[in-house]
Amino acid sequence: MIKAGIIGVNGYAGGELLRLLAGHPQVEIVAAASRSQAGRRLAEIFPSLRGVAIGNLAVVSPEGPAFSGCEVLFLCTPHGVAAKLAPEFLRQGGKVIDLGADFRFRRVDLYEKWYKVAHAAPSLLAEAVYGLPELHREEIKKARVVGNPGCYPTAALLGMAPLLKAGLVKEGPVIVDAKSGVSGAGRSLRADLHYAEMDGDFRAYGLVGHRHTPEIEEEASRVAGREVRVIFTPHLFPVSRGLYATIYLPAVRTLSDAELFEIYQDFYAGEPFVVPLPEPFLPQTKGVLFTNRCQVAARFDPRTGKIIVLSALDNMVKGAAGQAVQNMNILYGLDETLGLAAPGIWP
Amino acid sequence: MIKAGIIGVNGYAGGELLRLLAGHPQVEIVAAASRSQAGRRLAEIFPSLRGVAIGNLAVVSPEGPAFSGCEVLFLCTPHGVAAKLAPEFLRQGGKVIDLGADFRFRRVDLYEKWYKVAHAAPSLLAEAVYGLPELHREEIKKARVVGNPGCYPTAALLGMAPLLKAGLVKEGPVIVDAKSGVSGAGRSLRADLHYAEMDGDFRAYGLVGHRHTPEIEEEASRVAGREVRVIFTPHLFPVSRGLYATIYLPAVRTLSDAELFEIYQDFYAGEPFVVPLPEPFLPQTKGVLFTNRCQVAARFDPRTGKIIVLSALDNMVKGAAGQAVQNMNILYGLDETLGLAAPGIWP
Amino acid sequence: MIKAGIIGVNGYAGGELLRLLAGHPQVEIVAAASRSQAGRRLAEIFPSLRGVAIGNLAVVSPEGPAFSGCEVLFLCTPHGVAAKLAPEFLRQGGKVIDLGADFRFRRVDLYEKWYKVAHAAPSLLAEAVYGLPELHREEIKKARVVGNPGCYPTAALLGMAPLLKAGLVKEGPVIVDAKSGVSGAGRSLRADLHYAEMDGDFRAYGLVGHRHTPEIEEEASRVAGREVRVIFTPHLFPVSRGLYATIYLPAVRTLSDAELFEIYQDFYAGEPFVVPLPEPFLPQTKGVLFTNRCQVAARFDPRTGKIIVLSALDNMVKGAAGQAVQNMNILYGLDETLGLAAPGIWP
Amino acid sequence: MIKAGIIGVNGYAGGELLRLLAGHPQVEIVAAASRSQAGRRLAEIFPSLRGVAIGNLAVVSPEGPAFSGCEVLFLCTPHGVAAKLAPEFLRQGGKVIDLGADFRFRRVDLYEKWYKVAHAAPSLLAEAVYGLPELHREEIKKARVVGNPGCYPTAALLGMAPLLKAGLVKEGPVIVDAKSGVSGAGRSLRADLHYAEMDGDFRAYGLVGHRHTPEIEEEASRVAGREVRVIFTPHLFPVSRGLYATIYLPAVRTLSDAELFEIYQDFYAGEPFVVPLPEPFLPQTKGVLFTNRCQVAARFDPRTGKIIVLSALDNMVKGAAGQAVQNMNILYGLDETLGLAAPGIWP
Repeated sequence: MIKAGIIGVNGYAGGELLRLLAGHPQVEIVAAASRSQAGRRLAEIFPSLRGVAIGNLAVVSPEGPAFSGCEVLFLCTPHGVAAKLAPEFLRQGGKVIDLGADFRFRRVDLYEKWYKVAHAAPSLLAEAVYGLPELHREEIKKARVVGNPGCYPTAALLGMAPLLKAGLVKEGPVIVDAKSGVSGAGRSLRADLHYAEMDGDFRAYGLVGHRHTPEIEEEASRVAGREVRVIFTPHLFPVSRGLYATIYLPAVRTLSDAELFEIYQDFYAGEPFVVPLPEPFLPQTKGVLFTNRCQVAARFDPRTGKIIVLSALDNMVKGAAGQAVQNMNILYGLDETLGLAAPGIWP
Repeated sequence: MIKAGIIGVNGYAGGELLRLLAGHPQVEIVAAASRSQAGRRLAEIFPSLRGVAIGNLAVVSPEGPAFSGCEVLFLCTPHGVAAKLAPEFLRQGGKVIDLGADFRFRRVDLYEKWYKVAHAAPSLLAEAVYGLPELHREEIKKARVVGNPGCYPTAALLGMAPLLKAGLVKEGPVIVDAKSGVSGAGRSLRADLHYAEMDGDFRAYGLVGHRHTPEIEEEASRVAGREVRVIFTPHLFPVSRGLYATIYLPAVRTLSDAELFEIYQDFYAGEPFVVPLPEPFLPQTKGVLFTNRCQVAARFDPRTGKIIVLSALDNMVKGAAGQAVQNMNILYGLDETLGLAAPGIWP
Repeated sequence: MIKAGIIGVNGYAGGELLRLLAGHPQVEIVAAASRSQAGRRLAEIFPSLRGVAIGNLAVVSPEGPAFSGCEVLFLCTPHGVAAKLAPEFLRQGGKVIDLGADFRFRRVDLYEKWYKVAHAAPSLLAEAVYGLPELHREEIKKARVVGNPGCYPTAALLGMAPLLKAGLVKEGPVIVDAKSGVSGAGRSLRADLHYAEMDGDFRAYGLVGHRHTPEIEEEASRVAGREVRVIFTPHLFPVSRGLYATIYLPAVRTLSDAELFEIYQDFYAGEPFVVPLPEPFLPQTKGVLFTNRCQVAARFDPRTGKIIVLSALDNMVKGAAGQAVQNMNILYGLDETLGLAAPGIWP
Repeated sequence: MIKAGIIGVNGYAGGELLRLLAGHPQVEIVAAASRSQAGRRLAEIFPSLRGVAIGNLAVVSPEGPAFSGCEVLFLCTPHGVAAKLAPEFLRQGGKVIDLGADFRFRRVDLYEKWYKVAHAAPSLLAEAVYGLPELHREEIKKARVVGNPGCYPTAALLGMAPLLKAGLVKEGPVIVDAKSGVSGAGRSLRADLHYAEMDGDFRAYGLVGHRHTPEIEEEASRVAGREVRVIFTPHLFPVSRGLYATIYLPAVRTLSDAELFEIYQDFYAGEPFVVPLPEPFLPQTKGVLFTNRCQVAARFDPRTGKIIVLSALDNMVKGAAGQAVQNMNILYGLDETLGLAAPGIWP
């Protein structure tokens, strides 16, 4: 059994880790920390853990000794915090999976420019691996620190990687029009996320300057082997969970939809969590809710020479905690689907 | 034009008053106050008022001179506040419609017991009229102070009044099982009303001790001419608006559903806002959203001798601001449906 | 591995069985039938099964030979059908779990009166066991035919059983005011369940005559050892899943809330799926979604002498397919929580 | 009073017309037709009309004599039907507002190519005016036949017109990524729009070939004075109403956000229903629900040289029935806001 700890357990990503790790046959959760909730039992914080064994675990403070017994540490902390906590834990021989932004970038300057803080462990950043298994599985196997991707970048990159890799995307900006359920905005109270205000609403936010933009660009450029420029527009729609990206890419040549499907099938052959959909199916968030799967499909528009890619995932699972568990499975040489194989829900 | 002022405009009831009064042909909103929002324009606080004339009005402080020019004052303030603000305004010759609890009770002791504050204007309480027009229209016409009923009591009382009045209800507790949309809980941030927490949920709250219990009991007893005891259980369901009461009353005798319908039709003959539904229709909240209407229906259960009454309304309209406007229309001798006649919405 | 078959797989209960059985370590789904969908793969019918192994299974016709290899047969068919299909399968030595109404009653006349069809296998009805494990575990162990309870009766009976058993409920009707998510109404298209019509709505239906009434009464009477009369009022609220019952029972004596909690804790001691909640928590549907758990709580109202019980479950899991799997686990001597132990979801 | 008739009243656009026309001070609804509902009263079809005067109107057959007394006819019929019904009504001296597609195109060949039917009244098509008042007010004043725009084209065109008109858009495809509430798909039953299937879902549909594409292109080209090519991707999100378009346009030059705001303000100066939002506000569907308003905002992305435009409206109002009433007001020389001035709703 792998001994796991979670810091920042009170947020939604922390809670989702609890859900997934509690059902994982090779993991024991030995400590869960939250500064604001220390002393309470998990079942007090999460109504869904009432009557569940893990719900009896008492939340500790992040500074406590509880984490010294952990082999793997999941960090669900605001950016800037993980970079401070990780080095000490690594010194004790553990491995770190950070669900925040601190270890997602290769370039320190990019991180510091977009997040507006100095990075507390720049040398670790150089060592860290970007935890998108479909692109970096081999590096993850050998990593000590995994920067778990953002929810939007996961959907965007899984959607565009096959095309970028195959050299099918022409120069020119790629547009990622993305829509997220409200859990993506976190558990902190906000007037515009009060139930009665968000119910029935649809809205864009963070135009032009959202921090997931450079994350998408850095990885997309790496896959393409050239600089890729991205316009990223996030929106909120009124559900708890689910994330949808509609991606517009200029094609270097005419493609048929059948050819596109084949490209995705080949690229994701053997991948347990990326599901290219054949005609006439299109991705839909409800089809992947509570799973670690990402549904993708691509269509060519002969009138404009653009490829339109659709990518759907659960922002809390493949977009956060599920991907973190997948990364843990890889780090420890386990079957990658352990704890993540459950079918989706319907309805 | 009646010059109207609103104090506590930032909350949902205040906002709904804006919506209704802005469309009222005989009203001019001359001042709107909110301590926390003073200085901002209404359109900054309510996205629905962007591009609407009233949205340009600047919010003032409740203490300002703006209200001296008002003829009627709508108070959307926490309990305890209205009782302090009302006397001064009445001295200036105005009329007061309080959407809070301060003027809903006849008995000061009942108010003080359930709200746990001393009443600041007990003599006014004696003078105030309970603003349920279907029961107290004649008194409202002559009132200076109207205590606008709570949302739950409105649904409950409109549902049970015809039976109580007709002497068809046997001794024994009446059960009011009520379900409300989330706006009823107000605009203040609360962890359990954060969008992602409330989405998909259904829950009871305030069991056994909700403050609307004595309000329902006092009025029900008055209608019945004897003491009526009520068990009131409120619940939240995941929508912004809508309120549903399912009421169980012990019957003095066997009744047919047709007879029940006739009793409701007779009782509410000429009432513009209470809609008894004939077979096979049953009340549904969506049928009354954004209107001042209350749909009601009753069925007799021969197996148990109980009458089951269903009552549906929009908690923001007939349950708050719409009823307040109806009361204002009565106070000023206007057609009672002025500003309130719009059909409902579908879908 | 237990070889399982499902007839009526296209409906929501059938789909939920797929979800749960696909994740069950001791079950192999060998055949899934649906008359209308025969020939299609499961992934075509359920978007959530795209990219999931079980999704490749081709749906067969209920008459096909596929079921001869099954040990246990789950029937998700309209009432009347299971009573016809079960006898033949039992002759082959299999066991039957019927998620419909055909084997829920002890009294044939009650079934025939409320369902208005002649029962096709009345002798089997006598043999069948009502599959509420918390009340009938020992009988289920030895059964060949299990009548899986309805969703409403499960919530109602788990809520009231401890009180009835303890003799704490006085003569007089028990009121079950219940609220269900829309999946409970099934997958067949209906104008009033079209998305745009149901969105934002709350409504009662099936007043006075819903078929779950006699099911609740028959079992409640058995637990109480005397006839219990029930008024049952179902409602729909706008979510896919979740079921809430608010139950009003006349108490034989004054009780404290602490005493009530103890009664529930004792009654459900060792039960893995019924979760009595201590103060200050109250049941909420979102806390049990996608789980086989039922949250319960009870409060005494000293003003009226009634006990108010709240009971929340997922109508598709503890209210249907999850309970069926629990029954299967019991039938085969497995750990009762196999395949059902996952924590709930949040948010 | 203008005597108005509606054909196709059973659908959502028809119902919305009822709502708006019933509240219009200068209109009398004299006849409402629906082939499938003839003989029923409107209140039987629309729960929101129970207890409302117009709800008593009996639905007639479209062929009946009722429409001979109408001055203006609103057609909410499937494409192909309006072109057959309009000529006869015009001969009687009436005016026609078609909410379907039959009179939206200038080019018959474009209509016939995308809608795959021969146009039954091509000469009328030449005469008909595209009913987007912000672009064609003067022509509408003199029209006999108005082709009321589609919901998506309205949002898209109001969003992009100021930029196209000002010559600020470079050659190259314009991308319209649009999201609609479910009412846009109509009232006909569909498995994928069953409540439990759509609840919680987000999905794209109609990729590359949606029929609103040529409608947007034809009008956009007219405004721009050159051919504009559009990629249009519609999606559904789980609400009844609301429509959001996110539009990406290549700019001819660098622009500031302030400059963009000014361009929109100038273009829409005096327009009662288009609301350009200043920083820091962004359009949101809930801000325009149940109103005829369209909120718009534009931002420049200096990293890619694209302008991102956001446009939000209620697909049933400005996207259908509200715009039709606006067109009627123009046709009859009335104040354009008559019956359409109500503030939005919150929450």
